[in-house]
Amino acid sequence: MKKNVLIIGAGGVAQVVAHKCAQNNDLLGDIHIASRTVSKCDAIIASVHEKSAMKVDGVLQGHALDALDVDATSALIRDTGSQIVINVGSPFVNMSVLDACIATGAAYIDTAIHEEPGKICETPPWYGNYEWKKREICAEKGITAILGAGFDPGVVNAYARYAIDTFMDTVTAIDIVDINAGSHGKYFATNFDPEINFREFTGTVYSWQSGAWQENEMFEVGHDWDLPVVGTQRAYLSGHDEVHSLSANYPDADVRFWMGFGAHYINVFTVLKNLGLLSEQPVTTAEGLEVVPLKVVKACLPDPASLAPNYTGKTCIGDFVKGIKNGQPVEVFVYNVADHAEAYAEVGSQGISYTAGVPPVAAALLVADGTWDANAMKNMEELPPAPFLTQLDRLGLPTRVKDENGDRPWNA
Amino acid sequence: MKKNVLIIGAGGVAQVVAHKCAQNNDLLGDIHIASRTVSKCDAIIASVHEKSAMKVDGVLQGHALDALDVDATSALIRDTGSQIVINVGSPFVNMSVLDACIATGAAYIDTAIHEEPGKICETPPWYGNYEWKKREICAEKGITAILGAGFDPGVVNAYARYAIDTFMDTVTAIDIVDINAGSHGKYFATNFDPEINFREFTGTVYSWQSGAWQENEMFEVGHDWDLPVVGTQRAYLSGHDEVHSLSANYPDADVRFWMGFGAHYINVFTVLKNLGLLSEQPVTTAEGLEVVPLKVVKACLPDPASLAPNYTGKTCIGDFVKGIKNGQPVEVFVYNVADHAEAYAEVGSQGISYTAGVPPVAAALLVADGTWDANAMKNMEELPPAPFLTQLDRLGLPTRVKDENGDRPWNA
Repeated sequence: MKKNVLIIGAGGVAQVVAHKCAQNNDLLGDIHIASRTVSKCDAIIASVHEKSAMKVDGVLQGHALDALDVDATSALIRDTGSQIVINVGSPFVNMSVLDACIATGAAYIDTAIHEEPGKICETPPWYGNYEWKKREICAEKGITAILGAGFDPGVVNAYARYAIDTFMDTVTAIDIVDINAGSHGKYFATNFDPEINFREFTGTVYSWQSGAWQENEMFEVGHDWDLPVVGTQRAYLSGHDEVHSLSANYPDADVRFWMGFGAHYINVFTVLKNLGLLSEQPVTTAEGLEVVPLKVVKACLPDPASLAPNYTGKTCIGDFVKGIKNGQPVEVFVYNVADHAEAYAEVGSQGISYTAGVPPVAAALLVADGTWDANAMKNMEELPPAPFLTQLDRLGLPTRVKDENGDRPWNA
Repeated sequence: MKKNVLIIGAGGVAQVVAHKCAQNNDLLGDIHIASRTVSKCDAIIASVHEKSAMKVDGVLQGHALDALDVDATSALIRDTGSQIVINVGSPFVNMSVLDACIATGAAYIDTAIHEEPGKICETPPWYGNYEWKKREICAEKGITAILGAGFDPGVVNAYARYAIDTFMDTVTAIDIVDINAGSHGKYFATNFDPEINFREFTGTVYSWQSGAWQENEMFEVGHDWDLPVVGTQRAYLSGHDEVHSLSANYPDADVRFWMGFGAHYINVFTVLKNLGLLSEQPVTTAEGLEVVPLKVVKACLPDPASLAPNYTGKTCIGDFVKGIKNGQPVEVFVYNVADHAEAYAEVGSQGISYTAGVPPVAAALLVADGTWDANAMKNMEELPPAPFLTQLDRLGLPTRVKDENGDRPWNA
């Protein structure tokens, strides 16, 4: 049982987290938001008040914080009496925020794997390079640390666990498919931090197949998926966080992640990558200025938050899970469909931020009421999925199941 | 009659200029090369010696110089006894180098119009914004200043003058076509400084038609040209220096410039431009670093000089000139075809640098022997073309003429 939430970060996902925490502040207590740029916290707070999102009167406050500073982060956790930290800042700060939670006893929840600025697509399993090295100390000190609790990674890990537990004796394949069939009306934009978005796709694509890591190039392997609501969509084998924990928990299954891309995205990406403009390594201009090209691309692209007002269409994200039940092959698709315009109407954000920001609040609610207060480091598939899916239903991300028996709510 | 040459700049064009000056140092005297980075001068000097290009024993020396510093440039002109300055540095330094020539009495020759870093595609005529403001003082002081003496602008201006004087009573249209049908084997590269290359194409396309400036977008107007050697090639109405002087000297003619682009170049250009990455205006990264995107793109692209060893194929650049002769319409194509590999074999540069670097040396030879020592500011079509075309024949850029009477050397 924990309460009072400190949100790290003040981007589009943090805005969703703040709104959802506010809507549940009777259960979560005080809400604090910390960012390098406190004006971004203030803008989120204004947005929460504009929507009258606070369920009951309570604390909602912004703070300036360099989250790479463990002492400063620890002090803020203590000063605000926060027992739950939702880290939706840059993935560069994961380890320092986690260290602050370990120092203070607060529960830690994030939505993406730790990254170091100068490195991309490191040796698999990715969690082994950073987060899992803290597993032992979390267990020793009884620290609850829930890794990758966004939609993907996050909800899709819970979908896999749910499908396997419910529909099969053994699992043979988990194919996670992420399709954004929405339209933002810009020439080009990424749906979250361009720097983080591109870093996902500029290195080796790791998948887990036949009990071993397989390596591919981005856009090398494509597949057309027939999906509810959004129809047939082409997606490409991509590297993604959840492959690196699901493969550890289900080593006998193939684990693959498929991200949908249109021809226009691929063209822009290919041009930028081939020119070296997506590089995380600095170059020096003729004038002697040292600069990371990717950071300049980020500075030129639209702020993902600015896409929200005109975003239309839907997302479909889910897991095709195959296995054996009573000696017979079974297959099920567990999924959610979200709507960009509905997300904007509710919390002022587009659908990608919405699907990423709601799940960590569902996790926080389960930490708050003790259900998921595991006093240990956990990936999402290591926690009981049913209470989580129930919370997601309530918070606006309903789960559906499609198989030979039809297309229905997961708990129908 | 003037002698001793100071070359400003040490890029790919400067290398060609140095080689050609060295091959003619019996006529030109001492040769000096100045650049911010003196090691680039040294590399050119080494290349000249490697090819044993010096016709007679003589001075060939490099100097560190900030060519924006008029006093330093004037001092170097005086110290080296240079009476001819060939400015093939960045177009940002034109006016300061010209001022140094005015201060010292040296003849000034350049190959591209002056530009200010923060401005692109200014109000036409472009020469009116900078160079022509110095016309009066050049006349007063008897300063020879030859503007735009590369291939285009430069040779193509002389082609226009030659075609008009030789084949027609009145001119009705000058269409300059620049085709590089060569291949450098890279994913993408520009043939000269990417910053200057892209700046040409990111603003309004000005052409002179029906006695007035017409405005178009880049790649808005395309035309397939049937050309000698390189065959049919698609080129696009583009903004270019020579349109801004030819239209002043031949106001009753339409004056257009057409640059050849393949679909791949256009795609890359379009992506970069639409993302804002070709902007000459600074952006600020999330980390607070102020940087001009175009300068980062330049830092990521191949050094144009590095293309030379593997460059194959040919360029075709020339003027389709239409007019009236004895009441009948006439049309003539005056052109040159150059070969990338031959250029590399001779001077260690690719064909684009070769075609840009040979003509200012031809102009310098005509200043040296007095033929073009005009004691005034001149655009190229304002000087007698025949001695210049004769020098170009001798220096490796032969001129040909194609019309209803066949395809032949200009002086056949």
